Amino acid sequence: MRSVDRENWRRRFSEWFREVLDEAEIYDYRYPIKGCGVWRPYGFALRRNVLQIVRNILNSTNHEEILLPLLIPENFLAKEAEHVRGFEDQVYWVTMGGRDKLDLKLALRPTSETAIGPMLKLWIKSHRDLPKKYYQIVSVFRYETKATKPLIRVREITTFKEAHTAHATLEEADKQVREAIGAYAKIFDELGIPYVINKRPEWDKFAGALYTIAFDTLMPDGRAMQIGTVHNLGQNFSRAFEIKYLTKDGRQEYVWQTCYGISERVLAALISIHGDDRGMVLPPNVAPIQTIIIPIPYKGEEEKILEKCIEIENILKKNGIRVKLDNREDITPGSKFYDWERRGVPTRIEIGPKDLREGKVTISRRDTLERIRCREEEMVDKLRELFKLIHESMKRRAWSWFKENTYRISNIAEGRRILEEKGGIIEVYWCGSEKCGHKIQDETESRMLGEALDLENMDIGECIICGRKTSRLARLAKTY
Amino acid sequence: MRSVDRENWRRRFSEWFREVLDEAEIYDYRYPIKGCGVWRPYGFALRRNVLQIVRNILNSTNHEEILLPLLIPENFLAKEAEHVRGFEDQVYWVTMGGRDKLDLKLALRPTSETAIGPMLKLWIKSHRDLPKKYYQIVSVFRYETKATKPLIRVREITTFKEAHTAHATLEEADKQVREAIGAYAKIFDELGIPYVINKRPEWDKFAGALYTIAFDTLMPDGRAMQIGTVHNLGQNFSRAFEIKYLTKDGRQEYVWQTCYGISERVLAALISIHGDDRGMVLPPNVAPIQTIIIPIPYKGEEEKILEKCIEIENILKKNGIRVKLDNREDITPGSKFYDWERRGVPTRIEIGPKDLREGKVTISRRDTLERIRCREEEMVDKLRELFKLIHESMKRRAWSWFKENTYRISNIAEGRRILEEKGGIIEVYWCGSEKCGHKIQDETESRMLGEALDLENMDIGECIICGRKTSRLARLAKTY
Repeated sequence: MRSVDRENWRRRFSEWFREVLDEAEIYDYRYPIKGCGVWRPYGFALRRNVLQIVRNILNSTNHEEILLPLLIPENFLAKEAEHVRGFEDQVYWVTMGGRDKLDLKLALRPTSETAIGPMLKLWIKSHRDLPKKYYQIVSVFRYETKATKPLIRVREITTFKEAHTAHATLEEADKQVREAIGAYAKIFDELGIPYVINKRPEWDKFAGALYTIAFDTLMPDGRAMQIGTVHNLGQNFSRAFEIKYLTKDGRQEYVWQTCYGISERVLAALISIHGDDRGMVLPPNVAPIQTIIIPIPYKGEEEKILEKCIEIENILKKNGIRVKLDNREDITPGSKFYDWERRGVPTRIEIGPKDLREGKVTISRRDTLERIRCREEEMVDKLRELFKLIHESMKRRAWSWFKENTYRISNIAEGRRILEEKGGIIEVYWCGSEKCGHKIQDETESRMLGEALDLENMDIGECIICGRKTSRLARLAKTY
Repeated sequence: MRSVDRENWRRRFSEWFREVLDEAEIYDYRYPIKGCGVWRPYGFALRRNVLQIVRNILNSTNHEEILLPLLIPENFLAKEAEHVRGFEDQVYWVTMGGRDKLDLKLALRPTSETAIGPMLKLWIKSHRDLPKKYYQIVSVFRYETKATKPLIRVREITTFKEAHTAHATLEEADKQVREAIGAYAKIFDELGIPYVINKRPEWDKFAGALYTIAFDTLMPDGRAMQIGTVHNLGQNFSRAFEIKYLTKDGRQEYVWQTCYGISERVLAALISIHGDDRGMVLPPNVAPIQTIIIPIPYKGEEEKILEKCIEIENILKKNGIRVKLDNREDITPGSKFYDWERRGVPTRIEIGPKDLREGKVTISRRDTLERIRCREEEMVDKLRELFKLIHESMKRRAWSWFKENTYRISNIAEGRRILEEKGGIIEVYWCGSEKCGHKIQDETESRMLGEALDLENMDIGECIICGRKTSRLARLAKTY
């Protein structure tokens, strides 16, 4: 059985998260600038595997990877009025080169709509150039004045996947929004991260967008966290940057744009949601090490056991399994178990004298802590089967906890109490007015995630504030 | 035969380079900040394949990939005195966050010795933690006041591979320098880029290093270009950052460090050195597209020919060949040939009515422009064989031109005339003194690349300035 005391974990989650990042050597937050951290080798490998999933899914839907400059001239950042208002308090400015004061301040990209703007103007001439679907994976910067938190609220977001698309019509841009939502759902499913899909309220949409759709998950402490957003930008940026195309019937028309992003918060979610008292539990498809081999030494048989371990390591490598043999000599098997459990390695193979004698291996699952024995010849198939089972079981468990913590509420005081005591997400009927929306937020002391877009059945209810009939269900939570 | 008029190409190389970057959609230099450009999809894919080679070679020698923050606090950048003097005129400074003036200026990394310093101090405790061998691939920034040139002299170097290592002794650091030189030689060999290995003169070593060893290649215009450097840092940075370890016999000792870097100049070299009048010629191992299929339509058989092309595309894909079918309808085969030759695709398959009838395909080599026909069943093997042949032949051709343009000189006026008229690298005996060194530079109107480290036979000669006996051969060139 899983060793997790949910209530205890909820209360000490913040501490757990810091400990795991540190002890599992994921991300070192002791760098001498607040809000900046270092990806260590094990964390970097995890990040790379997650990004590979992101890239595969984007590439398979004909997105092209590019790389835009970090610096954005002040006058370009300012071209779209709403946009610059939304970001100007958060932008880092380069004002000096060497000892010279620069003529024009340069922003560290907070996001790249205004960096790709002048390029799209050059690259798009005619309807035959459309659609364009680009993405890049880069660092973005926010001058955060609130308390920072590693991977969750930082000043250098080192892992920001941002996509930028251009289309001939509003309908095609809307269709692209739906494609992006489908792609993001696939990415989070591959990572076993549960989510709800919400249309952000008007007052919380992306600066410069027509509308914003967001994926929200739930962290172990009961707070919701945004893990992906998709925006329809309409013609706001294309008008500001004069990105026009020649239509089939010879007119000049502004393009319609979308953009969508996933940040390293997805890694924070991945690390946290599947974890337990012992540390991380990683899905096998992204685990840097899928199987750790640990020799169980026995007097006089040390060498034979180590040889067998090396043989098994080679067999697994040859079969494309990411495997590591822990043959450190000055440390007990128990301490090794601890280390690799902390790091979330999905399966462990122990080889002791009994295994050697019987031609068997003992495999332990990190997620359920179950142990099974199998014949050496069956080991590769068994592991492959286990990887699938583990992935499915982790995903099911995460979704089941997520659903348990989502509450349909018809009494606003009850909603406030739930969020206060246990956290989670509450759902209430909402007429859609800004006035009622703010009131719900105030009275539940939480933040509106927006209108639910992923309901199977649309019922009619009454706005929890004004009583008007509505089919709009709002979700709220305390958030990161 | 290759269509390249060397003399003409030399003279118009600068123009050729800009045209190719633009027309082959490698790197768009029209971004609104001087010295900053955009990697377009085809260029990005080429860059990715080159970086994969770099990563494979570093990973196979137990380097671990990490990611350090972009920003470096002013007081950390200044910790190593030589280092900060070497970079202070070139550093971009962030001085504002939102509307606030920052208490401490933050540098955009010009390189990361001073960013990894405080981390190594935390990560290294004992001799058992050594050696450490890290690398990262990131953007670095230089406030260039000279004229900029895409990929060669830019303000955002978007592709900088920097390795940082720490060792217990000077001997081990020296050994690491040799390992790094071996790894770099392998990388450039994989790319077919010829090089010489030189120990930079004292006055031109990396700021903060004991010594600097550099790889230099020759661009088509006859100017030398540095494509990689390896530095032994001694204990200069470990003293500044207090990076100590506990020795086996219980003393506290400063670590010995090395660092080495390769920038996107390696991409500039790759694109330029193998090129010809028609555009780029890419080695098959890094070409984003290894084979382009072009249907040669014939009245009434268009559909059958297209079907065959799709069939062949699928066969090649299944065999792991990076292939693309150009089935654009509104453009002639001739224009398609032009487009893909420009982009350097190493092989082209044409399918016309005759090929269809006879069950054959026509394959053209981009490097030699030779055409061969083979039976469809032999196509996959033939292509794989061709990829090897093309790689070898490109490498041989590049090296042969490189050697033709290296001159052993015993008369200084002759050296100046060669560099003035044809460019290339000259080699002269040099006593090693700074005075004679500067004089050779001045009289040949060139830059000293340093002392040759890759000579097979060490002869004795006389310093071209003072006549003293010496075995030191200096290389000089006009440089980028």
